[in-house]
Amino acid sequence: MVGFDGDDTLWHSETRFHVTQREFRELLERHVPDADADARLAEMEMKNLSIYGYGVKSFTLSMIETAIELTRARIPAADLEVILGWGKRMLMEPAELLEGVEATLRRLSGRYDLLLITKGDLFDQEGKLARSGLGDLFLGVEILSEKNVETYRGVFRRRAIKPEEFVMVGNSLRSDIVPVVDLGAHAFHIPYEVTWQHETVPEEELPKHGWRRLSTIRELPAALDAL
Amino acid sequence: MVGFDGDDTLWHSETRFHVTQREFRELLERHVPDADADARLAEMEMKNLSIYGYGVKSFTLSMIETAIELTRARIPAADLEVILGWGKRMLMEPAELLEGVEATLRRLSGRYDLLLITKGDLFDQEGKLARSGLGDLFLGVEILSEKNVETYRGVFRRRAIKPEEFVMVGNSLRSDIVPVVDLGAHAFHIPYEVTWQHETVPEEELPKHGWRRLSTIRELPAALDAL
Repeated sequence: MVGFDGDDTLWHSETRFHVTQREFRELLERHVPDADADARLAEMEMKNLSIYGYGVKSFTLSMIETAIELTRARIPAADLEVILGWGKRMLMEPAELLEGVEATLRRLSGRYDLLLITKGDLFDQEGKLARSGLGDLFLGVEILSEKNVETYRGVFRRRAIKPEEFVMVGNSLRSDIVPVVDLGAHAFHIPYEVTWQHETVPEEELPKHGWRRLSTIRELPAALDAL
Repeated sequence: MVGFDGDDTLWHSETRFHVTQREFRELLERHVPDADADARLAEMEMKNLSIYGYGVKSFTLSMIETAIELTRARIPAADLEVILGWGKRMLMEPAELLEGVEATLRRLSGRYDLLLITKGDLFDQEGKLARSGLGDLFLGVEILSEKNVETYRGVFRRRAIKPEEFVMVGNSLRSDIVPVVDLGAHAFHIPYEVTWQHETVPEEELPKHGWRRLSTIRELPAALDAL
């Protein structure tokens, strides 16, 4: 069985957050030219993570709160409405697949059971999968509120997966590689062009064995064969 | 196996939305005394449902959008910050169990496999279950973005549940009773003091057999015995 992360592994996600964040920065510059909107937004997201969890709705609420706080509530409501619109745009955008994803998944789906294991907002992630056109290739979908040893262990138990027969593929060392390797399964790391700071892992905390890095998903079939 | 809905079946939810909605109405009255804030908010929630899905974050975003729209963007950002605060308060509140829930679940957990089947926001629902102290009584948790024949069929397939061996318990005819009975399982309806308009079902669309109404969860053990 091969598990795939969704965001930034199968479809673009972080680049879209970056696009919206640039618009956010430009909007805020008109009100508070000296403020570091990016830093304040990042702090707000971390502060709110335990209340809101991951996803676009959480991001939208944190943008609104940051805008109010940075402008000391002087921002006009019309500008906050613009921010609401960005959130909706992000939620409605079609899932834009990364290069090579569809061909690789079609090739693998005959030989392996494929499982989508993502985190974030349930409604948004299900929508993205439906819009991606890949839904039929997956045996199942697991959407977790957090990806760690405990939640992966839950997936393994629910689906009667033996770690030694499981391989995880994803762009995040913290969410897709470290916890899976800890549980005795194998993992392939495919870095994305942009990494959210929150998802990075210090080099010394990386497992020594059980995973390796691929430069594109197109290398995955051969890498699986070589296991 | 007995499946339980969470919101307004195990713990209070809708009353809290009502409390916040009253505060929302009072806030809006100060800006637009003639507006029907409740009606506009309900319309906004329905309009946004296909984009946001269910849950407190969606409700918060819809309150902000409604407030901006009703005041033609004249509402001060400080008031919108108050609305953000209501959303956070709702997300952080401890799960307040309905009367009789804990004793009944403890009694049933030795004799049946219990499954929590809720809809809404994954992060919020997992948090509520954790804070409820009931987590250990459930064999598993299924959080669905929508509860209908298709999603229940998915649960049955994933967990190898035979409909004739499954009973669903919940407060919503639309989400907990009709689709489950359609699939050949049994259901018990325990009405809550308040029903969200969206969850009602016209009398003539209700199944004739396969379910019945209980007035409290305390009647459930005897009702299950009688099946």
